[in-house]
Amino acid sequence: MAKSLPVSPLAPPRFPDLPQIAGVRFASVEAGVRYKGRRDVMLAALQPGTAIAGTFTRSATRSAPVLDCQAKLGRANGDGAAILVNAGNANAFTGTRGVEAVEDVTASVARELGIAQDRVFTSSTGVIGELLNAERITCRLAELHGGLTADGIADAARAIMTTDTFPKGATAEVTLPGGTVKIAGIAKGSGMIAPDMATMLVYIFTDAEVPQPLLQQMLSDLTDRTFNCITVDSDTSTSDTLILAATGASGVAVGESEGPFCDALHGVMLDLAQQVVRDGEGATKFVEIQVSGAASPSDAKTHAMAIANSPLVKTAIAGQDPNWGRVVMAIGKSGAAADRDLLSIWFGDTLIAEKGWVSPEYQEADAAAHMKEQNILIRVDLGLGDGSATVWTCDLTHGYIDINADYRS
Amino acid sequence: MAKSLPVSPLAPPRFPDLPQIAGVRFASVEAGVRYKGRRDVMLAALQPGTAIAGTFTRSATRSAPVLDCQAKLGRANGDGAAILVNAGNANAFTGTRGVEAVEDVTASVARELGIAQDRVFTSSTGVIGELLNAERITCRLAELHGGLTADGIADAARAIMTTDTFPKGATAEVTLPGGTVKIAGIAKGSGMIAPDMATMLVYIFTDAEVPQPLLQQMLSDLTDRTFNCITVDSDTSTSDTLILAATGASGVAVGESEGPFCDALHGVMLDLAQQVVRDGEGATKFVEIQVSGAASPSDAKTHAMAIANSPLVKTAIAGQDPNWGRVVMAIGKSGAAADRDLLSIWFGDTLIAEKGWVSPEYQEADAAAHMKEQNILIRVDLGLGDGSATVWTCDLTHGYIDINADYRS
Repeated sequence: MAKSLPVSPLAPPRFPDLPQIAGVRFASVEAGVRYKGRRDVMLAALQPGTAIAGTFTRSATRSAPVLDCQAKLGRANGDGAAILVNAGNANAFTGTRGVEAVEDVTASVARELGIAQDRVFTSSTGVIGELLNAERITCRLAELHGGLTADGIADAARAIMTTDTFPKGATAEVTLPGGTVKIAGIAKGSGMIAPDMATMLVYIFTDAEVPQPLLQQMLSDLTDRTFNCITVDSDTSTSDTLILAATGASGVAVGESEGPFCDALHGVMLDLAQQVVRDGEGATKFVEIQVSGAASPSDAKTHAMAIANSPLVKTAIAGQDPNWGRVVMAIGKSGAAADRDLLSIWFGDTLIAEKGWVSPEYQEADAAAHMKEQNILIRVDLGLGDGSATVWTCDLTHGYIDINADYRS
Repeated sequence: MAKSLPVSPLAPPRFPDLPQIAGVRFASVEAGVRYKGRRDVMLAALQPGTAIAGTFTRSATRSAPVLDCQAKLGRANGDGAAILVNAGNANAFTGTRGVEAVEDVTASVARELGIAQDRVFTSSTGVIGELLNAERITCRLAELHGGLTADGIADAARAIMTTDTFPKGATAEVTLPGGTVKIAGIAKGSGMIAPDMATMLVYIFTDAEVPQPLLQQMLSDLTDRTFNCITVDSDTSTSDTLILAATGASGVAVGESEGPFCDALHGVMLDLAQQVVRDGEGATKFVEIQVSGAASPSDAKTHAMAIANSPLVKTAIAGQDPNWGRVVMAIGKSGAAADRDLLSIWFGDTLIAEKGWVSPEYQEADAAAHMKEQNILIRVDLGLGDGSATVWTCDLTHGYIDINADYRS
């Protein structure tokens, strides 16, 4: 069982006021899947015509619910739809009985709500390798159905937490030629103390009317610039799931040219992604890494991720040490193109290194002052081309070891 | 300056008795490059005809001495040769003045010993981004020259340490049709508490007579099975250097078919590589990861390294937690081919998972008992093909954070 952790020092001051999204209702219950005395199952019911898009972990050992969701994406929107999520058990690496549990739950939800089974999407997060007792969920479906309410999203955000230290939500409103639409999303991750990897689940809802192929395209593009640009510890879950549902209830259509909707969705996704980093296991610093001047955008991201995932860079940040030598090391090992003698490195606004050596004006006191802040910026210019990328991470502290080593499941 | 660390609990009981290798003599001095009160510069002088082979870091930001060594490899053996190593300053990311320092040192050594400058190889290990004061080394060359002795290798092993907690040596003797030859090697790494990456330096000497191209081929092949199969924290140094010198002084020639010599050299290299892991920063467990049944040998190594580098696997080992779910996760994220339902996993001799789920006979107490040992074995079979690989690593503990975050340079 989980022991309770102090709320991350990087948490936002409070959970945001999320608006009701027309066409979606939420319910959550204490089903006792693993945790006691807290909500651990949430249901979202979506009106007929809702378009659903998703992105998922690329793990070769992905969980049964992930495989089931992937198989169902892109089907016709005519019917209503549902998303059911449980916390406490990931239903991953559970063989054919794991597949049967997904089948049980999705069939039962379809029956309860009177919708097609291939419009029921599930996620499971928590311990892996243990069987999911589907009955603990299916026996509560009538109660969940009866409890569906348009303002249940905040409780839903809490029901999907495993050992997150705070619930995560974000919202946006955008005015289009046809009217105003709303977006609201919730996420969980990355503060696990159960004996598993940091799984990430994200659900975003909008009352905009968006054709499913366009919705999927937007989601995939924006995922590459948001959730695929964060890292806590370089370990990838078997269960990562991001589902975006557009109910169309506003009657406002989003066409291919609707940049403002895309921008608003980007803002919600980036906010949620950064909240996941802010709840990184043991995190005390929020770190943005900007790379420019790379030979290509993918080289820029490779360098940025090499810096963000380096244990030596992350421990230096934890120690408030402006250790730019470790940034040089991470760039050197990344495998992407770099020329030592064209590199420039800044910590905050302080230029530290240029032309292959420390800058003549560099005063360590300036960089050291920046390292004492809670939000750290590391900026690198490769001097090779136009490729750029920005990623976000946190530091590596004793808290990470406490959570993942000292605590035995 | 370094604070002193307790000797690793994984250290061998004592430094081995290394034999004299005919054709090579050693000297070391307290030059005060950075450390006080200890030897920090070593010189090895090699007789004319010595063949020299080397492997080096692939970092794009490699240090000036590494680039200089790489440029010199493969030249004619006629002249004598020398290896000079300093600890305390890595001469990495030091621009043109770093290149000048290498030029100063190698020219001075060549002049002192009366050999060609392109037969002088240097390494520097320690702080990066600070200028190497070459004069602290060059002013001691006469003393080093005068102090050369055939039995100086143990002092040399100590002189190249940075914050290693023990000196590292290994030896072998092998009888060939033409007579008996000896091999002796020394290494440093990976217990840095200076503000840098864990650099690794290795020097191996033999009195066998081996043509340089064959020596280089043997070294490169064996490096892939030894030093390229260890990891402490996934971070790659700017300075990693491995030099193998064959003096030929035994008069015993090693031809292409000399398997026994290759096996003996493999044994010395593996021993030194494993000693580096045993001195991994904060290590309390020595971990062997065996992967079999992969689609190819390179897939096997990719899986093995993904497991060995996973912070979640490494913290679970530190916590003595038989957390096989994290091994599944690491295989899933590695990018190499895997089929969840064909995977088998053992901790020690205990079969934990097979056919995509926990084995019916598995008792957690068996695996938990193995995790309490100091030497941990994780074995994975992919069930896909004949590819196999073995790699070695250590656990991730509070000690790693202490060394790299809490200690400020």
